[in-house]
Amino acid sequence: MIQYPSKLVEEAVEAFASLPGVGRKTALRYVLHLLKKDEAQVQKFGSTFLRLKTELKHCRICHNISDAEMCGVCNNYKRDHGTVCVVEDVRDVMAIENTQQFSGVYHVLGGIISPMDGIGPNDLTIDSLVDRVKSGNVKEIIMALNTTMEGDTTNFFIFRKLKEFNIPVSTIARGIAVGDELEYADEVTLGRSIVNRIPYEATFSSK
Amino acid sequence: MIQYPSKLVEEAVEAFASLPGVGRKTALRYVLHLLKKDEAQVQKFGSTFLRLKTELKHCRICHNISDAEMCGVCNNYKRDHGTVCVVEDVRDVMAIENTQQFSGVYHVLGGIISPMDGIGPNDLTIDSLVDRVKSGNVKEIIMALNTTMEGDTTNFFIFRKLKEFNIPVSTIARGIAVGDELEYADEVTLGRSIVNRIPYEATFSSK
Repeated sequence: MIQYPSKLVEEAVEAFASLPGVGRKTALRYVLHLLKKDEAQVQKFGSTFLRLKTELKHCRICHNISDAEMCGVCNNYKRDHGTVCVVEDVRDVMAIENTQQFSGVYHVLGGIISPMDGIGPNDLTIDSLVDRVKSGNVKEIIMALNTTMEGDTTNFFIFRKLKEFNIPVSTIARGIAVGDELEYADEVTLGRSIVNRIPYEATFSSK
Repeated sequence: MIQYPSKLVEEAVEAFASLPGVGRKTALRYVLHLLKKDEAQVQKFGSTFLRLKTELKHCRICHNISDAEMCGVCNNYKRDHGTVCVVEDVRDVMAIENTQQFSGVYHVLGGIISPMDGIGPNDLTIDSLVDRVKSGNVKEIIMALNTTMEGDTTNFFIFRKLKEFNIPVSTIARGIAVGDELEYADEVTLGRSIVNRIPYEATFSSK
């Protein structure tokens, strides 16, 4: 049991320690760092989080985090609104945007089906995705979820939901990462990369 | 350059990324974690830091962080107010309190002399320490600073300042840590532990 010299410091330590991967020692280090800054900076630090939950919106189309009713991607007429990439959360959107290889739009599920964590299909924005497809503007769905059991389950669930609409549903390719050596790849990935081999000419097309 | 979907998220990420050892990826993980909590919890998170700087006090005697004018240690009549342990910051106080081996009081310098970081003697509470000694109530000073060059410099500076008052000034013992193996100890520490060897009987006294 650590004894803190001040109730206020203890509260601040507990606040930081509630973040993922932050223990009490690290939290105390953060608090002492804040205490060394001047008052205005610490005020700004605190008020940023006060605004976070109240002012932040979710795009009403793709459910990504946004400052406005509609996010920058959904609001961009240059994007291909017929191609929808389904992702788990905003980090995946940022990662894909970073590749500059995708010109379609997104659909952010807000999680993946995970019975262990008590997350079922109704906790996600799957109904909204079905509505988007129902509206007839979607020409293709690309599933870009993590390659975990939960990701595969969610892929399968959404695939079945969208089956009746008869639009192509694909998943992003799994295989050996660029720059990786074969001998260190795991068997499942290596096996899949052989089963899902692609014509040699196709490897040029994305460059 | 990472593109954030929202200005508000970017501000929150920058706030977290200003903490020591937190990069933008970790900061974003923290922000997304906060976004999953309910509004009241996030409000509490932010308001804790708003209060931190305005409501927190420093003990007017030892300068430790405190909720009141005087900290719990200085306010405790059972402590030995004649023995003053000089430390860098509140973490050292907590570490020493945790050992339950020290019944004196503290003096928190608020840093150590470090010309590289622009911290000189006047940025620390050294004058206040001299005043405490001048008042005549201090019988012994124990220097408990880190064993770095900055720590040694500060030790030396304070030792010279207090010389005229003719009270014993000691530093905490440096040596092989309990449980450590000799062959892995560095030469300086091992050398010092031989020079500063203690009578065998004395090793029982602290138990």
